[in-house]
Amino acid sequence: MQPYISVITLGVAELARSKRFYVEGFGWQPVFENDSIVFYQLNGLVLSTFLTADLEDDMNLKGLVRPGAFALAHNVRTQDEVAPLMARLEQAGGTVTRPADAPPHGGFRGYVLDPDEHPWEIAWNPGFAMDAEGNVRFGA
Amino acid sequence: MQPYISVITLGVAELARSKRFYVEGFGWQPVFENDSIVFYQLNGLVLSTFLTADLEDDMNLKGLVRPGAFALAHNVRTQDEVAPLMARLEQAGGTVTRPADAPPHGGFRGYVLDPDEHPWEIAWNPGFAMDAEGNVRFGA
Repeated sequence: MQPYISVITLGVAELARSKRFYVEGFGWQPVFENDSIVFYQLNGLVLSTFLTADLEDDMNLKGLVRPGAFALAHNVRTQDEVAPLMARLEQAGGTVTRPADAPPHGGFRGYVLDPDEHPWEIAWNPGFAMDAEGNVRFGA
Repeated sequence: MQPYISVITLGVAELARSKRFYVEGFGWQPVFENDSIVFYQLNGLVLSTFLTADLEDDMNLKGLVRPGAFALAHNVRTQDEVAPLMARLEQAGGTVTRPADAPPHGGFRGYVLDPDEHPWEIAWNPGFAMDAEGNVRFGA
């Protein structure tokens, strides 16, 4: 079976607050929005921010909690881009849990929670090759 | 700024139990593994399963909880593929929260939790175009 992911859905409490983080922080533009959901087109998959109550209804699972045991990473192309992007995300409503530093496996990275406590790693990782569209492949 | 995600990291309690779900359930093969992490190469991004304690150390954030307020979707190409894949995921250690049915927005989908309660939506969604590599774009 082909290994791929089509959509990442994040449960959010308030769409406007979440949108500010993704639009002003990351600089991404929605491709669709209504009263319960906002879509961002990414590299071959869609990021969806969906009111948590609606996500719970869709999943048929109540009691989703935060921060969940996961993280999303956005890799940048040079070490120098990590801290400025983290600063911009913080200004747009994010919370830094780890200021950028060098992990044992190499590279440079920090972590920022979005306004709904969804964790983002902002990383420069020379162990992952990246193409012009931002697609990554494990292995330098 | 380019809208892309590089890595999705899921915190797991036990690598072997998690691996069974992704290898036997989805049929994906690891591209890297050691005592704390397993990587799967996806469509332009990497899925990482990482021991939760190590993820918490990396994030500098203790107390990650589950099920988190998010979901990952794997879209299939026809409605008929949804239920058999969900059955295989269940046999590989998953838990169905919603058997496949038709949502209000169209298509056909169900939800399965992986062994660490990370939610997967298995969906046939004619509103998302998919290419040969599994990359999706919002809009049919």
